[in-house]
Amino acid sequence: MSKSAENRQWLLRRRPHGRVTPSDLELAVAQVPTPGEGEIVIRVKLLCMDPTIRNFMDAAPGYGMPIALKGPIRGMIVGEVVASRDAARREGDLVWGLGSWSDYVSGPANRFFPVPVGFGHPLPVYTHVLGTIGLTAHYGLLDVAGVRPGDRVLVSGAAGAVGSLVGQIARIAGATQVVGIAGGVEKCARASERYGYDECIDYKGPVPVREAIAAAFPDGIDVVFENVGGPLLEAALDHLRKNARVALCGMIARYGATEMPPGPANLWSLVANSARMRGFLVSDILGQPARVDAALRELDGWIREDRLRYDIDLRVGFESVPDTFNCLFTGAHSGRLVVQIDNPNQSAST
Amino acid sequence: MSKSAENRQWLLRRRPHGRVTPSDLELAVAQVPTPGEGEIVIRVKLLCMDPTIRNFMDAAPGYGMPIALKGPIRGMIVGEVVASRDAARREGDLVWGLGSWSDYVSGPANRFFPVPVGFGHPLPVYTHVLGTIGLTAHYGLLDVAGVRPGDRVLVSGAAGAVGSLVGQIARIAGATQVVGIAGGVEKCARASERYGYDECIDYKGPVPVREAIAAAFPDGIDVVFENVGGPLLEAALDHLRKNARVALCGMIARYGATEMPPGPANLWSLVANSARMRGFLVSDILGQPARVDAALRELDGWIREDRLRYDIDLRVGFESVPDTFNCLFTGAHSGRLVVQIDNPNQSAST
Repeated sequence: MSKSAENRQWLLRRRPHGRVTPSDLELAVAQVPTPGEGEIVIRVKLLCMDPTIRNFMDAAPGYGMPIALKGPIRGMIVGEVVASRDAARREGDLVWGLGSWSDYVSGPANRFFPVPVGFGHPLPVYTHVLGTIGLTAHYGLLDVAGVRPGDRVLVSGAAGAVGSLVGQIARIAGATQVVGIAGGVEKCARASERYGYDECIDYKGPVPVREAIAAAFPDGIDVVFENVGGPLLEAALDHLRKNARVALCGMIARYGATEMPPGPANLWSLVANSARMRGFLVSDILGQPARVDAALRELDGWIREDRLRYDIDLRVGFESVPDTFNCLFTGAHSGRLVVQIDNPNQSAST
Repeated sequence: MSKSAENRQWLLRRRPHGRVTPSDLELAVAQVPTPGEGEIVIRVKLLCMDPTIRNFMDAAPGYGMPIALKGPIRGMIVGEVVASRDAARREGDLVWGLGSWSDYVSGPANRFFPVPVGFGHPLPVYTHVLGTIGLTAHYGLLDVAGVRPGDRVLVSGAAGAVGSLVGQIARIAGATQVVGIAGGVEKCARASERYGYDECIDYKGPVPVREAIAAAFPDGIDVVFENVGGPLLEAALDHLRKNARVALCGMIARYGATEMPPGPANLWSLVANSARMRGFLVSDILGQPARVDAALRELDGWIREDRLRYDIDLRVGFESVPDTFNCLFTGAHSGRLVVQIDNPNQSAST
């Protein structure tokens, strides 16, 4: 890399109250890191805009460590190894993992995973269906919720990155009914028309979501894949079938909330229906390479058979990252939101 | 049975609002039933006072069918077959099952289960540790919560019938820490001294239950056996360990509540800890005789080895049943609350 390389970083200036505002963050320039023993340095190519990043900006994120004040904003990245002091990684390798909103990141080599470039897809695909999003949908629906042929399935966040895949995988797994929930006419249309949902309930629409769920599931629900949390979960719990399974996959209603919304008052439904609810994080399986590989192969196969559609909303530009991030919460994006860094050193050093 | 036999019954006069009041119920006298084809008639010996009966008095009980207005109050009974039109049951057999607050009940023979008298215990024991209570504790802790050696276990309702057994079974299963929650100094003392809890948190005491749980579990909780629901559950969820398991075994805070308490606002904890929560009813296993038998044998063994203590609060008298039932909710009982019916025909026909 050139000597003149600079390392732009977005730092946390103060902890946001609700939505992230411009004065919560600060654009700074740091040294390009050098690798310690067992470490690698990565030039970032893609930043993944995940809602959970908002959690990490809080003093008590709910899980994991908070981002330090004056520290760089943490997030999943895809990039190229530009320096390595670990035998398992060499310059030019493409890797992904937890980095930060920076031109360059460094860390222990074993905290980054090889991008499975052998599948032959464009790089952004590894931030989505062949990355954490696809693994989340695959693991969450097939293992955590244990979807089975004949199941009636409800998926919240149906037009989102994870939800768009969950509906299609449910169909592939033999579910007889796949209903989504999303906010707004446009998102609902995309869920039904593009992602194959039988129908999509608009929680911003004129029919109360509770009534819409009751109407959609006269015989009840076997599987709830819950991407959102809050009142949607309560409405879904009212319509469980015997032995129903609820997978809790992050709960976006919680992100950036200044007060916790009240929880569902009807957990009794779990007792009455001998039902189970299980939370999960995709990191639960990332340490199991064989399992990850099996899931990726299956997902790749479904893409090639044209059974799995996905959308990536690729933005370019480092300086607009905070605005781009907020699109996650305003809904001003369509598909997996990824930023390609306009790295000023990119052309010189690639 | 003598011709003069009468069949006293407690009927639901109107649906209670909150606690059951005398004017909600009505004592009536009906005919002793005669069995239809495949049915049996049972003279009731013991009535089990289960909190879930209060649910069935509501128009929308949460599960099962509501008790009909002017219909007899439903409940688990133990009794003796006095007439049978089913080949599998004969007069004199002792059976248990869902009956009603009556001197006599009738129904399809296959809805009643033989009392496992072969274990040689006094009859009330089959309403407790060798009946639904013991099966609930055994199934809920070992199968639903999947307790394992080394687990740190929190049990609410620790001085109650189910909770008193759960703590002891957790210890037998190799849990390293077993903490109870109960209401009041007396109950807590009983949980610690009689049922072997390491400590028991008094939710009516001066220390907020949330702080007491935090202090008791500096390293977090692996298993929550939840007998109560409401704010106790929320406090417990704040202290889960990775891969924690929560068994929801009925939730007494809900019974007779005129408004649902808000649910836990921190279900996020299930996601952050990849934890699971599962509701269950003992009826989930009652149709599996081999499984029930294996559990009963194990429970019987633990009684004989003096590893399992239990308490039965046996009351006598049919006319006082409503008052006795309310003791469940005021705490004015100690141990499994059972009513032995002072059946006026008992001496003549036994």
